Amino acid sequence: MKLLILSRHADEYRSLIDQAGLGLSIIIAADVNEARRTAADAAIVLAEPAPGVQAIRELSSIRWLQCTWAGIEPFLASDVRRDYTLTNVRGVFGPQMSEYVFAYLLAYERRIFERRAAQQERRWDHSAPGALQGKTIGLLGVGTIGAALAGTAKHFGMRVKGYTRRSEASADVDAWYHGAQLAAFAEDVDYLVSILPNTPATRHVVNADLLRALPRRAVLVNPGRGSAVDERVLVAALRDGTIAAAILDVFETEPLPDDHPFWSMPNVFVTGHTAAVSRPVDIAPLFIDNCRRFLRGEPLKHVVDFELGY
Amino acid sequence: MKLLILSRHADEYRSLIDQAGLGLSIIIAADVNEARRTAADAAIVLAEPAPGVQAIRELSSIRWLQCTWAGIEPFLASDVRRDYTLTNVRGVFGPQMSEYVFAYLLAYERRIFERRAAQQERRWDHSAPGALQGKTIGLLGVGTIGAALAGTAKHFGMRVKGYTRRSEASADVDAWYHGAQLAAFAEDVDYLVSILPNTPATRHVVNADLLRALPRRAVLVNPGRGSAVDERVLVAALRDGTIAAAILDVFETEPLPDDHPFWSMPNVFVTGHTAAVSRPVDIAPLFIDNCRRFLRGEPLKHVVDFELGY
Repeated sequence: MKLLILSRHADEYRSLIDQAGLGLSIIIAADVNEARRTAADAAIVLAEPAPGVQAIRELSSIRWLQCTWAGIEPFLASDVRRDYTLTNVRGVFGPQMSEYVFAYLLAYERRIFERRAAQQERRWDHSAPGALQGKTIGLLGVGTIGAALAGTAKHFGMRVKGYTRRSEASADVDAWYHGAQLAAFAEDVDYLVSILPNTPATRHVVNADLLRALPRRAVLVNPGRGSAVDERVLVAALRDGTIAAAILDVFETEPLPDDHPFWSMPNVFVTGHTAAVSRPVDIAPLFIDNCRRFLRGEPLKHVVDFELGY
Repeated sequence: MKLLILSRHADEYRSLIDQAGLGLSIIIAADVNEARRTAADAAIVLAEPAPGVQAIRELSSIRWLQCTWAGIEPFLASDVRRDYTLTNVRGVFGPQMSEYVFAYLLAYERRIFERRAAQQERRWDHSAPGALQGKTIGLLGVGTIGAALAGTAKHFGMRVKGYTRRSEASADVDAWYHGAQLAAFAEDVDYLVSILPNTPATRHVVNADLLRALPRRAVLVNPGRGSAVDERVLVAALRDGTIAAAILDVFETEPLPDDHPFWSMPNVFVTGHTAAVSRPVDIAPLFIDNCRRFLRGEPLKHVVDFELGY
């Protein structure tokens, strides 16, 4: 059986998959044009979303596509066929996301940018730091990433509130909120972290109402999806002191446009979609496990529901 | 029995101690001159080191002094009497120290200062971050603070090496080193953290030999005591690339002198002795527990051994 790899990290993937001895014939192609000539009969594809969706459009032989990212939005376009199995990556980004979120939460409490500025002025800054211990984190969305964040928050002695559609899957969450309980969820949150997926139901969940429900000391962190935040109202809320600051990794348009107000706002910290990166060393084991299932005719893990969008 | 409080946070301490109902007569004095008039017969003192050592010199009635800090160097001067019980603060700084150390370790891996600079240039910095997961931390000294750091390091998936005189007290340490094993301890350490106390035996433990034994990628973190680091050789090691960077909270002279090279070195991060601050809310319970022991004639906790110096 043929496996087509369409990835910037194709060589690294081939090396890792070769070691698993799956008996596949592995083809690497630079793009779908090349794949049409060399892998027209490939049944399995391992790909990033952009070349992956092109492969689905042009190679009718594909029965299963393993996406190397968590985000699979391009595959949901209405003119893309859905008569194949799409799997994405879940459960591997928790540790990276946790390092990202807590890097910035600790930086904020410890005022490390201010202390760096003091150093540049040769000023001994002996001002007392803040602490995460005793503060409250609110998680918008508690899947595997939210559960990892909850675990780290507990390690640092924080109180954890979780908002989900239904599930209550993490033992590290102290209080659960659902449906219309967003205001109660938000009311005493020091750090609001959105790890919602990009679906029609999550669009602009972080809106004017939610921002107003937060305390004025609150900090928004968005390492999830840009679509979850109404950026226009967030800019206003950060300017008028409705909330204190925002740490943003994802945006409604990426890369962030040159003229976006976020760039120059002192209480906004922009990172360029780097909170969690897909590393072959993390993704390959998940693909190999799924591949063994596929070859045995068993159900795959992390199958995307095209209707739900995740 | 009379309790004299000599502290910048005296009112907060009085309020917390009052609630415990110990039956003490509590006297707050602005300084030792005032205390000589109002508390000449006080048996118990709760004090910061500077006014505390003055009280010991001038009030012969003192039988027990609870220091509000971990560091008790002033009490060890050879002309200060030792015919009383000195207790210090231990076991409460772990969480704060952990927040300090991991704020900077995560900031370093995530390149958050570089990303902030990119934002100021309106540059979309999509470069991949590093991660603590899989890296190695080396703890110089593993008491209660070292054990707290070991726990956080394990939470982030790090390997933990511990160097101590004798004790092997933390289950989160993967490998222990003692005595002459400093080079083996250092050889593959990504982050070397010194939490050694200030004693004659720990002076300049971080010397040219130890710095040379570290990999060139290593980062030194010192939230412990300034005396543990030979600053002259550290400056040279940071300039010639023997190690990559240093995060320093404590120094041989504090505040750090205006003309010290550390201020302007790009790979040195100076914080002004703020890694862990004594907060009455953390310290008062420890004093109250010791006070109950004192009133019952039982042995106190955290008694300083004047010979060992800690």
